Amino acid sequence: MDADRIEAALEAAVARAREDRGGEIATYIPELAHADPEALSAAVVLPDARVITAGSSAAHRFTYQSSAKLVLLAGLLEERGEDEVFRVVGTEPSGGGFASLARLETHGPIPANPLINPGAIALASLLAGNLEDRLGWIERWAARLYGAELPINQRVLASERRTGDRNRSIAYFLKASGVIDGDVDEVLEVYFALCSIEGGVVEAAHLAAVLARGGARPGDGERLVSRRTASTIVALMATCGMYDESGSYLVATGLPAKSGVSGVIVAVATDRAGIAVSSPRLNKKGGSVRGHAVLAELSRALDWHFALQE
Amino acid sequence: MDADRIEAALEAAVARAREDRGGEIATYIPELAHADPEALSAAVVLPDARVITAGSSAAHRFTYQSSAKLVLLAGLLEERGEDEVFRVVGTEPSGGGFASLARLETHGPIPANPLINPGAIALASLLAGNLEDRLGWIERWAARLYGAELPINQRVLASERRTGDRNRSIAYFLKASGVIDGDVDEVLEVYFALCSIEGGVVEAAHLAAVLARGGARPGDGERLVSRRTASTIVALMATCGMYDESGSYLVATGLPAKSGVSGVIVAVATDRAGIAVSSPRLNKKGGSVRGHAVLAELSRALDWHFALQE
Amino acid sequence: MDADRIEAALEAAVARAREDRGGEIATYIPELAHADPEALSAAVVLPDARVITAGSSAAHRFTYQSSAKLVLLAGLLEERGEDEVFRVVGTEPSGGGFASLARLETHGPIPANPLINPGAIALASLLAGNLEDRLGWIERWAARLYGAELPINQRVLASERRTGDRNRSIAYFLKASGVIDGDVDEVLEVYFALCSIEGGVVEAAHLAAVLARGGARPGDGERLVSRRTASTIVALMATCGMYDESGSYLVATGLPAKSGVSGVIVAVATDRAGIAVSSPRLNKKGGSVRGHAVLAELSRALDWHFALQE
Amino acid sequence: MDADRIEAALEAAVARAREDRGGEIATYIPELAHADPEALSAAVVLPDARVITAGSSAAHRFTYQSSAKLVLLAGLLEERGEDEVFRVVGTEPSGGGFASLARLETHGPIPANPLINPGAIALASLLAGNLEDRLGWIERWAARLYGAELPINQRVLASERRTGDRNRSIAYFLKASGVIDGDVDEVLEVYFALCSIEGGVVEAAHLAAVLARGGARPGDGERLVSRRTASTIVALMATCGMYDESGSYLVATGLPAKSGVSGVIVAVATDRAGIAVSSPRLNKKGGSVRGHAVLAELSRALDWHFALQE
Repeated sequence: MDADRIEAALEAAVARAREDRGGEIATYIPELAHADPEALSAAVVLPDARVITAGSSAAHRFTYQSSAKLVLLAGLLEERGEDEVFRVVGTEPSGGGFASLARLETHGPIPANPLINPGAIALASLLAGNLEDRLGWIERWAARLYGAELPINQRVLASERRTGDRNRSIAYFLKASGVIDGDVDEVLEVYFALCSIEGGVVEAAHLAAVLARGGARPGDGERLVSRRTASTIVALMATCGMYDESGSYLVATGLPAKSGVSGVIVAVATDRAGIAVSSPRLNKKGGSVRGHAVLAELSRALDWHFALQE
Repeated sequence: MDADRIEAALEAAVARAREDRGGEIATYIPELAHADPEALSAAVVLPDARVITAGSSAAHRFTYQSSAKLVLLAGLLEERGEDEVFRVVGTEPSGGGFASLARLETHGPIPANPLINPGAIALASLLAGNLEDRLGWIERWAARLYGAELPINQRVLASERRTGDRNRSIAYFLKASGVIDGDVDEVLEVYFALCSIEGGVVEAAHLAAVLARGGARPGDGERLVSRRTASTIVALMATCGMYDESGSYLVATGLPAKSGVSGVIVAVATDRAGIAVSSPRLNKKGGSVRGHAVLAELSRALDWHFALQE
Repeated sequence: MDADRIEAALEAAVARAREDRGGEIATYIPELAHADPEALSAAVVLPDARVITAGSSAAHRFTYQSSAKLVLLAGLLEERGEDEVFRVVGTEPSGGGFASLARLETHGPIPANPLINPGAIALASLLAGNLEDRLGWIERWAARLYGAELPINQRVLASERRTGDRNRSIAYFLKASGVIDGDVDEVLEVYFALCSIEGGVVEAAHLAAVLARGGARPGDGERLVSRRTASTIVALMATCGMYDESGSYLVATGLPAKSGVSGVIVAVATDRAGIAVSSPRLNKKGGSVRGHAVLAELSRALDWHFALQE
Repeated sequence: MDADRIEAALEAAVARAREDRGGEIATYIPELAHADPEALSAAVVLPDARVITAGSSAAHRFTYQSSAKLVLLAGLLEERGEDEVFRVVGTEPSGGGFASLARLETHGPIPANPLINPGAIALASLLAGNLEDRLGWIERWAARLYGAELPINQRVLASERRTGDRNRSIAYFLKASGVIDGDVDEVLEVYFALCSIEGGVVEAAHLAAVLARGGARPGDGERLVSRRTASTIVALMATCGMYDESGSYLVATGLPAKSGVSGVIVAVATDRAGIAVSSPRLNKKGGSVRGHAVLAELSRALDWHFALQE
């Protein structure tokens, strides 16, 4: 597809979304509350590695939060395989919010899927070695998939740690139920560090572009993860990536995606592009108001719904 | 894609699935219990209308059961539009089984999506006119999408009516909650008739092929439903079509699908094919054991996962 | 205890409760909406059959609604025994509202206890004979326990029938689950008739006085139900009689009780008295605002909390 | 009542219960698994302070576990009053098990009642001062109500601490929800110490006898807690004391009670006696098999059901 047409569509979508002043910045991690509510940036990475951006893209840095769960999932699927991964997490939509404990109790202790907090915490417990080893593993897989070495935002990390009681509750529940082993504080330290990876929309869209190419790197096509791993992740994004608005979001955009509470959404248009949008105003379910709007508009303009061909 | 390669893959998948003797025939609708447990038929309809079959396809007739919910949804989206349809049903996975009442009570009375029983019953209540008019509407839309005039199996219909107390419970709940109006017995008569449409895998695969072409008829490309309607339906099949195994099924096959309790599954490979498989042995969640197996094998052999391109 | 002291306490409690203008009349059974919101009557029946009343007692007639479930339970415990009764209903608080279906689905189909709608509907299905026989059975047991022949209010009965879709939903659920047999419409007709028994506070307090005497009639002490039946019913009133405010109500009053949506509450002070209060303003959970107030005040004034002795 | 008759009834009940070899010793707190499965002791303390025992009473020591929640509740009701206590816990049966988190999430974060783990943890967070002060408070109130200074079993305490992940999960949930403040580890240390109080059935029955006298000490009648506090506690025992078998237990025995996972049950026969039974074989819901049996038998033999008078 013509890059100019994509650029025009992206700019139009961003311009229109900017007018929406709905939603609220997340405040439950205090450090996130400092974000500029008007910030809005978007990037598209094409299979040939061309990059198209709109909004305040270069300057806008943010933590990836739950969207970074994709890194953990990808690395573990590659290194441990499906059998081991899907022994501690399921593959179904949870029918509830991102941090729900009720379902763990009513449907058996295995978290419904790897893209909700309990699922990612369970996956984080699979990493081996001392804490330094495990943090190194996260950094390596993040660099591989984002196409750049990215820092951990230490202020956000400290804020997550200080206010992470809901995640502590989840982790102790999983430990009490035999789903996870090991030291809960260390498992959570890994999880909080994962959520605190900081970057921009270009690097986030790079990861989406890897998935859009079935696991191959944009540009040179070097295989970063297997086709199987890539398709498993995209299928899970389709059904579970946007928590309890996954269904309505997929109807509206047709772009499997994963959101983060900082307001980022990474989305996959198979064979066409990887996309990332970031804007911190969130709707009641934790999704970025403007991020949704940009993706729905872009999908319509370019006919990128997964169930349609041009 | 070469039709010979598809035919070979379909035959291989059917041959292998035939070896699986797991699962049980549904017995809660007594008439379904008479099905031959070994029956297995499959069909692929290509965008150019070529038909490929395997197993006992021509002879094998069965009722479409919940897979026919797609007809109701398609017709209403076309005639009434999204706003009216999504006023009485949601677009999210339910996180529960196909006939759950608990969620209606805990998450508000609107059924989670149109592909579970409460959702289809709510949609059936939108049809206007006397009972004859409404049954006529169902027949017309069925003929349009299946590409053939299909009968209602009167023995199955009588069996559904006689044993439909769970669906009666759902319908009265929806009426008590103000979601549906009108005479409950008549709404259910329409719903039971919809479930009792009888045909074979070729007609079922024709409907899937319409969705795979974005709403256009295989062969001549005549538009049967809008691209918007088609993509909305396929997105809902991806997240909700297989009840509470929608997620694991999509990971395994990458083919958005809708199952019926008779053992039929209709599945969409966008731009490639419409597929239907029918075999009455069901797993615990109501999905066809051999149907799953055929679709997973076929998707792997032909690289038809929605998140992968050849 | 001195009857004068009781009378003074009852009058004081009624006078004080009359000042409370909180709560709303139930409107979901339209006929109930015609009640005078200011109506308030109360009666105490002593073990020796003396009757003490306050408020507009003689003139104030109302339907007994769910408080009449005690009649059904008592008659069945006597005639069929505990084994048969507790095969179709449990003996635990439901942790939910009076007409909840969710619990039936999540905790197995047996209703939690006989004092919620699903429980009483299940019990109503145990009655044998044709519809006339079953309605006769209700009338006989009502006359025995209320100490008077009481009519069925036909307007309320018609209103219950016309608007009973929630109860129909429950009944069909129970039938689909194998808890009840037989014709659902007839079972509900018995249930609606039970709820439509009309009387005043004196007759309602007579039933409570029978329970307070361990099953013996006030005055002559003729045994109407066994001590076992009486104590079982009072224990169930203590834990389940006031739906999901049973606990807070028992803390406040110490008087095991059963409420009805018309605003009546019948309460048992073992060895001391049977009490009934009626006032149609209801709180959010379906309990009579002034009924609660009168019982709490009376219990405090007379030291009638079951866990205290004078 | 004649003490000889009580003694004979107690001995008969203990002898009969000893034949029941059902149930399993709790093993989730490893130290409890060392209990002698055949141990069975029982005590009745009369209002005049006479003590009647049966079984291996003097020698049999055990930790009071959840039955000690009554001490915490009593002390806080006395010192802080109902308003403060019932701001952090409710007064309703939970409809679930003793350590359920699901209800906290679905019904709002306030624990359903003070006699389940979340409720007692919330109450433990109300104690003021440093950890030593708070442990001292527990010891003082325990001594006051049990009528003896009792030790904390340090091995059991260590075992609770080491395996208390479910309770940690609950505590972090409550903290994340704003129900409790302060250091979670310290709150849990107080809670674990409370559960680890060690004594015999005589001291446990003394506490029950205080409640049976409306808060006055057996024998000299010195007021230990107010009548209001005593009646509130007994009402909560009636509706919530035996977790999700509170209803069936109250029907069977008519004796408001509180169980502990070590197999102890303390039960109140108002104006008649305080009772304690201890035997470690538990049913599926965590209640002592032989404890239930002894109490049901004793209640029947002596006509001690709360809803009956002799």
